[in-house]
Amino acid sequence: MRWSPDARERLERAAFELFAEQGYQATTVPQITARAGLTTRTFFRHFADKREVIFAGDEIPDVARAALAAAPPDLDPLDIVVHGLHRVADERFEGRHDQVRAVRRLILSEPSLRERDARKRADLTDAVRQGFVDRGLDASDAAAVAETAVVLFHLALESWLDGPADRRMADVVDEQLGRLRAVLDGRPASSRFVTRRDGRRNAT
Amino acid sequence: MRWSPDARERLERAAFELFAEQGYQATTVPQITARAGLTTRTFFRHFADKREVIFAGDEIPDVARAALAAAPPDLDPLDIVVHGLHRVADERFEGRHDQVRAVRRLILSEPSLRERDARKRADLTDAVRQGFVDRGLDASDAAAVAETAVVLFHLALESWLDGPADRRMADVVDEQLGRLRAVLDGRPASSRFVTRRDGRRNAT
Repeated sequence: MRWSPDARERLERAAFELFAEQGYQATTVPQITARAGLTTRTFFRHFADKREVIFAGDEIPDVARAALAAAPPDLDPLDIVVHGLHRVADERFEGRHDQVRAVRRLILSEPSLRERDARKRADLTDAVRQGFVDRGLDASDAAAVAETAVVLFHLALESWLDGPADRRMADVVDEQLGRLRAVLDGRPASSRFVTRRDGRRNAT
Repeated sequence: MRWSPDARERLERAAFELFAEQGYQATTVPQITARAGLTTRTFFRHFADKREVIFAGDEIPDVARAALAAAPPDLDPLDIVVHGLHRVADERFEGRHDQVRAVRRLILSEPSLRERDARKRADLTDAVRQGFVDRGLDASDAAAVAETAVVLFHLALESWLDGPADRRMADVVDEQLGRLRAVLDGRPASSRFVTRRDGRRNAT
């Protein structure tokens, strides 16, 4: 059999075409390989199963770990998080709005994919937490920073996908950071309360 | 067959005894029912499978929904979240430190249980978000509030379980809220930076 340098991309493209045409559940691995003109053996060299075609971004925890290890030692945790999310937004999401939105819709429509997605998120949180522990942050702070990072990432992703395609995702990260801060100050933008400088609320 | 009013509790107790004695993977449903002196039919009336014995707290999204619907209309979102978490802490966790810790360890030790736990967390986030949307919060704020609530709950739970059994979990909720605020202000307690009042950092 001839080696296909683009086998992975061909399998992904075939899989997503079939998911769109006939649904995720109805699509089988042999159908994917037939569409791609490749063998099932080749499929299983690249993916553990059909579900994993969708979760190909599983190297993200590794990317996060590497980024944390490489960040200058004097940066504070939130700066590292925001800088990291800007990079992920620019390098992995920018210009792929429609594509990412289609994948996201597919994931949300299938319980087994939602479950896999939830685990992926938990794995990412663990990786970020461990990365900050390795940088010398205490365990409780590392946990809080990691949870914050992953929440910020997910809020930004959902908000970016809900908005127009030409909006920069990195800007949405900053906007969502402001929103999280507002929530924790007890003053979400749509709340009916006015917040005083000292953080106490006055009912309007 | 005689109806057992305490069947559910007997099955739970038997299951956790066996998980502790011989591990989760090695324990079968027939072993659990034999230990409990009940039939497998009774088991499946109470639990979909072995995994669900551990996730019996699945009504938590319903509890959250009901609490959100019942909260006075003039409370702001963060107050509702903190009040709700205090109640959950007092009513469901207080006095059960050892028991909850044993379950938590079991979940973290088994990939299939971690995955189920991650999905449970996603379901809870969805329920809280929908509850705030139903209260009139806009969708983006509701998402941010829900993520914050669930992160706060998980950080508090882990921190409480890591600490001494006589610490009140509701106090840990407050402590973790302070920690999250500090992270979002760019000043986690263990960071090497000093934070000025205006939120900008000075390197020490």
